[in-house]
Amino acid sequence: MKKHNFSAGPCILPQSVMQKASEAIVNFNNLNLSLIEISHRSKDFVEVMENARNLSLELLGLQGKGYKALFLHGGASMEFLMVAFNLLEKKSAYLNTGTWSDKAINEAKLLGNIVEVASSKDHNFNYIPKNYTIPSDVDYFHCTSNNTIFGTQINDFQKTAVVKVCDMSSDIFSRQMDFSQFDLIYAGAQKNMGPAGTTLVIIKEDILGKVSRTIPSMLDYQVHIEKDSMYNTPAVFPVYVSMLTLEWLKNLGGISEIEKINNKKAELLYSEIDKNPLFKGFVSQKEDRSKMNATFNLTDSSLENQFNTLWTEAGINGLKGHRSVGGFRASMYNALPLESVQVLVDVMKELERTA
Amino acid sequence: MKKHNFSAGPCILPQSVMQKASEAIVNFNNLNLSLIEISHRSKDFVEVMENARNLSLELLGLQGKGYKALFLHGGASMEFLMVAFNLLEKKSAYLNTGTWSDKAINEAKLLGNIVEVASSKDHNFNYIPKNYTIPSDVDYFHCTSNNTIFGTQINDFQKTAVVKVCDMSSDIFSRQMDFSQFDLIYAGAQKNMGPAGTTLVIIKEDILGKVSRTIPSMLDYQVHIEKDSMYNTPAVFPVYVSMLTLEWLKNLGGISEIEKINNKKAELLYSEIDKNPLFKGFVSQKEDRSKMNATFNLTDSSLENQFNTLWTEAGINGLKGHRSVGGFRASMYNALPLESVQVLVDVMKELERTA
Repeated sequence: MKKHNFSAGPCILPQSVMQKASEAIVNFNNLNLSLIEISHRSKDFVEVMENARNLSLELLGLQGKGYKALFLHGGASMEFLMVAFNLLEKKSAYLNTGTWSDKAINEAKLLGNIVEVASSKDHNFNYIPKNYTIPSDVDYFHCTSNNTIFGTQINDFQKTAVVKVCDMSSDIFSRQMDFSQFDLIYAGAQKNMGPAGTTLVIIKEDILGKVSRTIPSMLDYQVHIEKDSMYNTPAVFPVYVSMLTLEWLKNLGGISEIEKINNKKAELLYSEIDKNPLFKGFVSQKEDRSKMNATFNLTDSSLENQFNTLWTEAGINGLKGHRSVGGFRASMYNALPLESVQVLVDVMKELERTA
Repeated sequence: MKKHNFSAGPCILPQSVMQKASEAIVNFNNLNLSLIEISHRSKDFVEVMENARNLSLELLGLQGKGYKALFLHGGASMEFLMVAFNLLEKKSAYLNTGTWSDKAINEAKLLGNIVEVASSKDHNFNYIPKNYTIPSDVDYFHCTSNNTIFGTQINDFQKTAVVKVCDMSSDIFSRQMDFSQFDLIYAGAQKNMGPAGTTLVIIKEDILGKVSRTIPSMLDYQVHIEKDSMYNTPAVFPVYVSMLTLEWLKNLGGISEIEKINNKKAELLYSEIDKNPLFKGFVSQKEDRSKMNATFNLTDSSLENQFNTLWTEAGINGLKGHRSVGGFRASMYNALPLESVQVLVDVMKELERTA
């Protein structure tokens, strides 16, 4: 039975990517060797790494603008630490929009003073704070573009003269914007890019080298830049699959094309949430709703079993909400087809008809 | 054409493992979902992680002895740092037997005083120092069991009352010994265990919690222990393939069985190196020779092209020596069949006959 995979991450990737990835495990590039048994310094893999890095910059429109792309170990959680190690000399500013911002703040606190410019923690992060002030004397400003757990997304990134850092783990490559407003972007691969196990870091080189501490090699962006993401053995398979997904996106027409599809999916689902009396969105302000993760609850919780049965029978996977929010979460990453959202909406209508 | 893969790492894995891994990318556990698109907190993946951790302890004979097994991000290079962050309060002792020991020392120096108890750097690491003294007042002693680049291996681990840490990246699970002599063992997956992208850490819990510094979450072994290696999203695919390889090893009869095969492979190759006048081993003392990585040179370098042609035509891959040593390196990890070593030995004999 065909599955409709709404998993929040690791999540659905394009079917053609899965197929190629599977084949590469038994025979990569017709070498009669598996992708995972060759040297990461072989011509064949160096090419994969270079393609993946170039495609990242190209899709974000950042080629030739002083940026480097890195594929590192450790997930976004390691970047919480690396950002502070590399950029925080005295004081930095963080916008707190959810669990991941919160964790980023806690790690950075080990290395300097943190100004929390605004937080939506008081309302369980169900909105994006606006009209906050970013101090002009901080080393950098950090924000999280999309909050997977709560289903909010920043639509208006405040202008600032200070270095701007953004955790885009859950919405990178999903919508068009001027990415050059950011000096550092990072994203765990496991949403719109590839399998868990690698993290993309896009960094404007001229922001580095300004802190006085000695940075351990594995945490030093400059070290990874100098070694073209090969300071140590990279996560070969996750990087390869990321490259395949970025190629798929490029062939589709890039971010502006996928954004059109993502908008359609989000419109379809949110309009059902709004008109179906059995459901209620979790996010308090409609303009803060995430197009990647829609969070919603049943208005009558006694219908939960019935709804669970309906969507499970329809082949839907991964709809359970995160424990911090409860209810349901439909993650609609780049590779999720519109058809899957239609199946979910049909189930919601079916519940309304039969409940 | 069948390949004989002597790659130094990432390296050959069992064929049956590759096959299962390839299938799991399109359909994992008959879920009609890919392994890489499901939540790492799903029942199916939690089981993989638990199996992988349990099998590691079981194969090393460390179950029920106060050890925990972790699968972390970052490779052994990250462990160079984590070991020091978690264990180094004032002073620690390191044995320097190669490039990786050297790097481990340099990272640890950022956090305390390092005593280099002995080093073979003066002879390009072509032997294992012996009869050194481990000070009794250090926080721990660190050594590297096998030196991939130089082809040396420690056969006699010195007894000591201090905490003993060993980087076993390139020979873990290849030979039997009393693993309980170590308090912490770490190993990047990409030799005898799985694809690049995850690192096994085996740690005796009672050595933790003794340093006064605040350890960043991602670098804190205690955090990873408390979260069962799921503090953040683990490298799902590399952990899964590691589990498959550990299952394969268990079914084969465990470490004592693979050791017999590894001994045969090493004997076959080293006896040819010793009796064939065209070749000379790099390692100065025979008892220090690695059974995982055999390093050797041609006695007459003008035969290089001829030898390269012969082994390439025989389907051999990955025989080029590391740039720090030159010549050739035949890596004979667990999954390399005896047959492949025979093919290499035949090629060496053929060169002797025809040169």
